[in-house]
Amino acid sequence: MNFASDNWAGASPRIIKALARGADGIAPAYGNDDLTREVKARLAALFGREVGVLFAATGSAANSLALSALSPSYGAIYAYEEAHIVGDEAGAPEFFTRGARLVPIAGSDGKLTPAGLAAALARGSGSGAAIPKPAALSITQATESGTVYRRSEILALTEIAASRSLNVHMDGARFANAFAFLHQAEGITPADITWKAGVDALSFGLTKNGALMAEAVILFEPEKAAEIEWLRKRSGHVVSKAWPIAAQFLAMLEGDHWLELARHANAMAAGLSQGLVAAGHRLGYETEANEVFAVLPKAVIARLREAGARLYEWPTFGVAVDRRPGPDADLVRLVTSFATKAEEVERFVRLAG
Amino acid sequence: MNFASDNWAGASPRIIKALARGADGIAPAYGNDDLTREVKARLAALFGREVGVLFAATGSAANSLALSALSPSYGAIYAYEEAHIVGDEAGAPEFFTRGARLVPIAGSDGKLTPAGLAAALARGSGSGAAIPKPAALSITQATESGTVYRRSEILALTEIAASRSLNVHMDGARFANAFAFLHQAEGITPADITWKAGVDALSFGLTKNGALMAEAVILFEPEKAAEIEWLRKRSGHVVSKAWPIAAQFLAMLEGDHWLELARHANAMAAGLSQGLVAAGHRLGYETEANEVFAVLPKAVIARLREAGARLYEWPTFGVAVDRRPGPDADLVRLVTSFATKAEEVERFVRLAG
Amino acid sequence: MNFASDNWAGASPRIIKALARGADGIAPAYGNDDLTREVKARLAALFGREVGVLFAATGSAANSLALSALSPSYGAIYAYEEAHIVGDEAGAPEFFTRGARLVPIAGSDGKLTPAGLAAALARGSGSGAAIPKPAALSITQATESGTVYRRSEILALTEIAASRSLNVHMDGARFANAFAFLHQAEGITPADITWKAGVDALSFGLTKNGALMAEAVILFEPEKAAEIEWLRKRSGHVVSKAWPIAAQFLAMLEGDHWLELARHANAMAAGLSQGLVAAGHRLGYETEANEVFAVLPKAVIARLREAGARLYEWPTFGVAVDRRPGPDADLVRLVTSFATKAEEVERFVRLAG
Amino acid sequence: MNFASDNWAGASPRIIKALARGADGIAPAYGNDDLTREVKARLAALFGREVGVLFAATGSAANSLALSALSPSYGAIYAYEEAHIVGDEAGAPEFFTRGARLVPIAGSDGKLTPAGLAAALARGSGSGAAIPKPAALSITQATESGTVYRRSEILALTEIAASRSLNVHMDGARFANAFAFLHQAEGITPADITWKAGVDALSFGLTKNGALMAEAVILFEPEKAAEIEWLRKRSGHVVSKAWPIAAQFLAMLEGDHWLELARHANAMAAGLSQGLVAAGHRLGYETEANEVFAVLPKAVIARLREAGARLYEWPTFGVAVDRRPGPDADLVRLVTSFATKAEEVERFVRLAG
Repeated sequence: MNFASDNWAGASPRIIKALARGADGIAPAYGNDDLTREVKARLAALFGREVGVLFAATGSAANSLALSALSPSYGAIYAYEEAHIVGDEAGAPEFFTRGARLVPIAGSDGKLTPAGLAAALARGSGSGAAIPKPAALSITQATESGTVYRRSEILALTEIAASRSLNVHMDGARFANAFAFLHQAEGITPADITWKAGVDALSFGLTKNGALMAEAVILFEPEKAAEIEWLRKRSGHVVSKAWPIAAQFLAMLEGDHWLELARHANAMAAGLSQGLVAAGHRLGYETEANEVFAVLPKAVIARLREAGARLYEWPTFGVAVDRRPGPDADLVRLVTSFATKAEEVERFVRLAG
Repeated sequence: MNFASDNWAGASPRIIKALARGADGIAPAYGNDDLTREVKARLAALFGREVGVLFAATGSAANSLALSALSPSYGAIYAYEEAHIVGDEAGAPEFFTRGARLVPIAGSDGKLTPAGLAAALARGSGSGAAIPKPAALSITQATESGTVYRRSEILALTEIAASRSLNVHMDGARFANAFAFLHQAEGITPADITWKAGVDALSFGLTKNGALMAEAVILFEPEKAAEIEWLRKRSGHVVSKAWPIAAQFLAMLEGDHWLELARHANAMAAGLSQGLVAAGHRLGYETEANEVFAVLPKAVIARLREAGARLYEWPTFGVAVDRRPGPDADLVRLVTSFATKAEEVERFVRLAG
Repeated sequence: MNFASDNWAGASPRIIKALARGADGIAPAYGNDDLTREVKARLAALFGREVGVLFAATGSAANSLALSALSPSYGAIYAYEEAHIVGDEAGAPEFFTRGARLVPIAGSDGKLTPAGLAAALARGSGSGAAIPKPAALSITQATESGTVYRRSEILALTEIAASRSLNVHMDGARFANAFAFLHQAEGITPADITWKAGVDALSFGLTKNGALMAEAVILFEPEKAAEIEWLRKRSGHVVSKAWPIAAQFLAMLEGDHWLELARHANAMAAGLSQGLVAAGHRLGYETEANEVFAVLPKAVIARLREAGARLYEWPTFGVAVDRRPGPDADLVRLVTSFATKAEEVERFVRLAG
Repeated sequence: MNFASDNWAGASPRIIKALARGADGIAPAYGNDDLTREVKARLAALFGREVGVLFAATGSAANSLALSALSPSYGAIYAYEEAHIVGDEAGAPEFFTRGARLVPIAGSDGKLTPAGLAAALARGSGSGAAIPKPAALSITQATESGTVYRRSEILALTEIAASRSLNVHMDGARFANAFAFLHQAEGITPADITWKAGVDALSFGLTKNGALMAEAVILFEPEKAAEIEWLRKRSGHVVSKAWPIAAQFLAMLEGDHWLELARHANAMAAGLSQGLVAAGHRLGYETEANEVFAVLPKAVIARLREAGARLYEWPTFGVAVDRRPGPDADLVRLVTSFATKAEEVERFVRLAG
């Protein structure tokens, strides 16, 4: 019963097979190999347009490289106050941009709201160089709260961004889960919720999805890639052997394996969520991707832990007031992955009942 | 006949096996897993003392993290003018240290000399904050020219460094090849040529040695690791799944596989070097590790390329004047690896004859 | 009727006299002159302890140098959301610290509250390197809203800071006005509201007070000055002729001229404030130093402007809800200075009546 | 007999008069005042074209702001190895550019040579992001060795720069002395030796020339000023009272006072130089501006010091081999200024005879 995080899971067998295939060969270093070129072509096809693709070792690096392409060092970057870039990267965006400012904004359901963004932009918009220059908006898809921005919600935010000449970044560490959810519900394409909806750069992560390490910045204005390629080198993210990363991307994209894995993780989360609600528990946020935020009595949490369940208590800042835990309960985060088994879900629900 | 670089080679089969083993399991993220802990213990044993160990995605990142632990942002870092940190990392040290200065120093046989270091330190040592503060010395072992610092040579440099309160960094992207060479010749231990010889931090790289991606900073003053752990996070080098990196380190250290591979690469280089000399060609630098720098007639180079050989023409700045190529010849760099086959070497020598 | 800002005022005649005296002589460059040494001694006497003193060209530079001494590049700096360092320096703190994060906190009467600070510190205090490391607290005295922290209020904040090992910075661009106010009311010394109240570094500005350019960082742990002296040099704030800055400091400290000027400015503000209240207008914040924040009908503002008054409409984020302007009114900021004349105040009040 | 440095001198009386005039008035803050606007117009007239003008507190800041406009953070900046930006600013260029690299180049007579620049550019010009991107050339006029680049020498360097798409910076901390020298000799205009000779940005300093603090970046592509205005703010160089700096510029430009002062300083240096040569002493560099570099016996230096002379022994790295001091002599630097008196020169020469 590992619901600690999707990055605790190992890797899909296809990933290992792909690495084994490459290990015998030789390949030019620093990303000049055939597999890396193939990944770029595949991603261009997936997004339906030319894209700049830059691998990075982590989602944090991908986020920060993307933000560096979208904001000058004297820029302000607007984000949800519980966003990964705000609270979980130890200031990586500030380091990569060499001093841009993150402006945290309160939201709802783990998402930024148009009103919240507009209010933040209204502050300090005086004349001259006073506050850092409003430069970029960053949204996370799926959100850190397990919710998913609908296309219309993205558009409502990117329209405000455009009206203030902000570039738009999407943190897609769980883009697969978000897309799997929306695709099913709305029949959309990856393009529909990225560049066609005003997104300039996407951090596209497949590590949480089932790879060992497969993260990339996707720039929808590919010419921007030339400049941040220097920063990628300077930050030590141009690996000498790029083919293993490329091989992982290809294994995931081949036959939509990435979506297959994401759908599985989402289904496990849905099962968990429904089971807990059926057992009388409340949710902190709706379950739309592969994370369940449930309010559980402390005694229940203790019992689950004793039975071997791994999970985290979670801050409640973003939870609607009427959904927050009372004094004897806690909000817990339960993350499912490609490796989660139906039995684990069933057992957890049973124990929580 | 791939002599382009050791980072063009795939990976040792043991590496793939180690990854396959881990892929089924679950492991805490961000380096809190058992394998990572085991690597730390093994490295402490290897170096015969407590060490701080920080994984990074690349040797460039390891170098820069190490230098950031050894120099303030207003520091000066002294290095050989053809060092990797000077000429091949696009300014990564400046980026990580947030503006320290690299001071390039001429040398001999690809190595810094005590006289050269002393002369560089003698400059600008006026009063007050004028030049950046002399802070660190960096040496590469094995050097970028395929030579290896003897223990006494390291000591001669680190004594000067100590007299000026400089910290000492060693770029060990090919530490395995250097150690294999010295171990055979002098019976030394890893400790003898690192911390016991005045080295404060080592970039220990096994990627060129036969891994897919296995690079770490080893700090011989482990308490410094706490501070640069922040920088490692901020620079995006705290990977969410650390166990695959740890598994590679363990596969390499197990049964001295890293030395076995390095000895093979060194032997291939020695064969290549001896063959070329026997065929009447000159060397730019002595062959001591897994790189051969040979002066070949341009016609021979062209013939080798036609036959499928991969190699690079190389700058001759560091080559002793009497060893430099004449107008119809070029210096070429030939790198061997764990994957180099004796047949490749033989065929190359034959063709170059 | 210039109430635009105290930095619109020229300079006290004593300042010019001091410069004229120095212009004939010769003085060692870069702060090695006698006047600079004398300033350091005088400031040590003023604060009743050894201090580190570093001149800077601006209050922004002084703030950022101080914060760089108190926070690492991976630190978080907590400040009132309308603080000068947050909203008026274009990210200077981020630039000087090389990427620390400013955490804006809501407050009351232009001041941070203990509850607000504690709540901010409660967020994101998870394990490991996730958010930037809580490193420093910055408070402004007098505040940007014209209010003044009482000694007890400072202590309430610095106690929380100490409990979390935060260093404490005070932005004293209008320290003179604050001290003049408190001194009169409470009989305190500069030490009482700085280092004796837990403040580690003070930006001490006399430019707004009547100098041309006289700003300094005062470090109550003088040993920290050695390190940021490098940063001061690197940021271009070690002026070659330091004696003119020193001469201004001395002219101001001599015979408590700085307090004389501050008392005048405060008195003019008090007169303005009382006059406006007597005329039936409301205040946005209490008038305690040399800034008046008044709610005036738009028609009155227009009339004042026509009569030559200079003033700014001001954001109302920090104003208590029941003090905010209605639809036909605006909050205006009126700043008095050493040069403000009683006639200006009287005329303004009359016109606003 | 103060020959320590021109920045030890006080200030021209006209400077004090100009400050006194402004002290009575009021002026908008942050450079929005009339005097600042007037300076910009005067400088445009002086250089015969539209220019961007940004004040800074020091020449170091002006240099670094200029370089930040001309080089990205991943750029390489080529300069003479004894240039002020290399050896006297504690890494300010690295700090402002956030990590660009200074590439020091040997030269002759204190000047870069075309051959030296070309050789430096030939190194490391491989493919991809390896060395930092060659971005800018910086030359000092007058040089740190008291020599002056002729127009043809500037052109020879800027042509090479243009061929490699390098931007060109000129450090003009003693531009007045250089221009006074060339103007007399060649009848040139300021434009002829700056933008018409391929210079993109000039650090124009009048502090050493006789002001208290008057330094500016002059950008010959004024549109670049908008971007570095942010950096100027972030680095704390947007002073709140800009009119005192502007008043100094105007006082210097009025009636060519700056040239009058520079001609005086140059004449004093010429007298000193001729006197020392007549007394049988050798020069390390030709005396062309306001600095004399003479080889004096140690005993003579001691005698001069006893008599009250202030001067510095100076490094000889850049001195032609046949001009270097023998074991009983030292190279000394003697700097004259607007305040140097003919009697001081005469006495010094007499004592050195």
